[in-house]
Amino acid sequence: MFERIAVVGLGVIGGSIALAARERFPAGLVIGVDDNAVLERAMSLHAIDVAADDLVVASDADLVILAAPVKENLRVLERLPECVPGSAVVTDTGSTKRVTIEAARHLPDRLAFVGGHPLGGAARSGIEHARPDLFKGRPWILTADVVGNATEQAGARARVSRLVTEIGAVPRVMDAATHDHLVAFISQLPQLAVSALMHVVGETVDRDGLALAGRGLLDTTRLASSPGSVWRDICATNADEIGPALDALVLQLTRLRQNLHASSEIEELFQSGNVWRDRLVEQVER
Amino acid sequence: MFERIAVVGLGVIGGSIALAARERFPAGLVIGVDDNAVLERAMSLHAIDVAADDLVVASDADLVILAAPVKENLRVLERLPECVPGSAVVTDTGSTKRVTIEAARHLPDRLAFVGGHPLGGAARSGIEHARPDLFKGRPWILTADVVGNATEQAGARARVSRLVTEIGAVPRVMDAATHDHLVAFISQLPQLAVSALMHVVGETVDRDGLALAGRGLLDTTRLASSPGSVWRDICATNADEIGPALDALVLQLTRLRQNLHASSEIEELFQSGNVWRDRLVEQVER
Repeated sequence: MFERIAVVGLGVIGGSIALAARERFPAGLVIGVDDNAVLERAMSLHAIDVAADDLVVASDADLVILAAPVKENLRVLERLPECVPGSAVVTDTGSTKRVTIEAARHLPDRLAFVGGHPLGGAARSGIEHARPDLFKGRPWILTADVVGNATEQAGARARVSRLVTEIGAVPRVMDAATHDHLVAFISQLPQLAVSALMHVVGETVDRDGLALAGRGLLDTTRLASSPGSVWRDICATNADEIGPALDALVLQLTRLRQNLHASSEIEELFQSGNVWRDRLVEQVER
Repeated sequence: MFERIAVVGLGVIGGSIALAARERFPAGLVIGVDDNAVLERAMSLHAIDVAADDLVVASDADLVILAAPVKENLRVLERLPECVPGSAVVTDTGSTKRVTIEAARHLPDRLAFVGGHPLGGAARSGIEHARPDLFKGRPWILTADVVGNATEQAGARARVSRLVTEIGAVPRVMDAATHDHLVAFISQLPQLAVSALMHVVGETVDRDGLALAGRGLLDTTRLASSPGSVWRDICATNADEIGPALDALVLQLTRLRQNLHASSEIEELFQSGNVWRDRLVEQVER
């Protein structure tokens, strides 16, 4: 499938891909690119075969996976042509897809790019939380848009799709714009709502008030542990989709605020929440 | 402590109190009041000794626990003097406390009322989810305000506090207004935000979109399964505290929406969310 896989960015996603690839393809070579401190941890976890803090180490890779925050992936994309002189397939794992596809259009024909986004799974960031089975049974979106010359294009998505399947995920092809719209609602809006909620609640009730909280607030705010360094780039590169998603939530909360005494409005909202929550459980646990 | 405990409303909270009381005080009598269908389930779960769908069955109780939705508790409070002719301690488990304390001021002197609110614990509603250890280690707020004649007052809170301790909870005394302010933020705002979020996300992305969601959205929206029948009353009776809490969240989300391209704003918000989330985990798991 691929003999030399370079993973650029060894966080929980890149680290899990590396671990899974080494486990599934013991004959292949997994090349890790990140800061030296991260590389040391990656080596001690046996996540990679070869380590370097510079992209040149990926020069003879046949697959390059960009797994850093979105804007860092864009910077790597720019340097890729000078560092990888031969032909290769390039993919990424970023949470926004239009911006990466656009950037990839500047790649030379020998580099075929297919956008990717493994969904759900990682509760905590950092390679220390990487697991080879992180993607098991989870959707992994691949973009319908593939960049590169015609011959490369034909094979690139099929090959990435096979790799994704081999490491346990369920590939799903979708155009970049549809992806960016959907994740604004299923991933980015919940994340931002939870971060804002945790901030407001903490600032208002302080430690003593938090001591009265229970499992409910604990589960609700789990995502508030997510790193700002990743989300900063997601917000900036999908702002045109996240903005309207935030508007929709604000509108609903404002309406709710005006109807706190209207029993039927409250019951309707909860009824809708109950129904969609049941459907969500069905879909995710299916 | 108490020999005849009447629990009015056998949902997950009332049912768990009944189960815990029977386990801790096998010599005492636990009287359940609810609809016949619920009483049948309560009997088959061995949660109560005596069952009736009318409050008169509580006539010789020395403790009456109101564990129905808030407004139903208020209706029971009104009928209590005609149904309980002797002296008794009355408490409740409702999520808003000022309104219940005010209503209790109309009770005759022989009935001493202390407000109560067991916090956190119940993930699902209904007696089928009741557990005797539901309150273990969890805070149980008792109101500083106690209603009744002076002699009764002195003993009432101490006795309820002992009962609460015996069934595993940690009693914490607080005035009703402070309680209502704090729960608006630690419990009611998260609940309403999650219900609104689930509604908006579901209506926008539909079943197919939800299939792409992961553990993140699943955990975030667990509370969206909460029953509207309970929350309708909470919203109506704590609207003056919930309103400003919703305003604070809307303000934060609106600010965020205007700053999606401002990396430092996003990072600051996430930083704050990270810090408060860590403190929350410390406080709850302590």
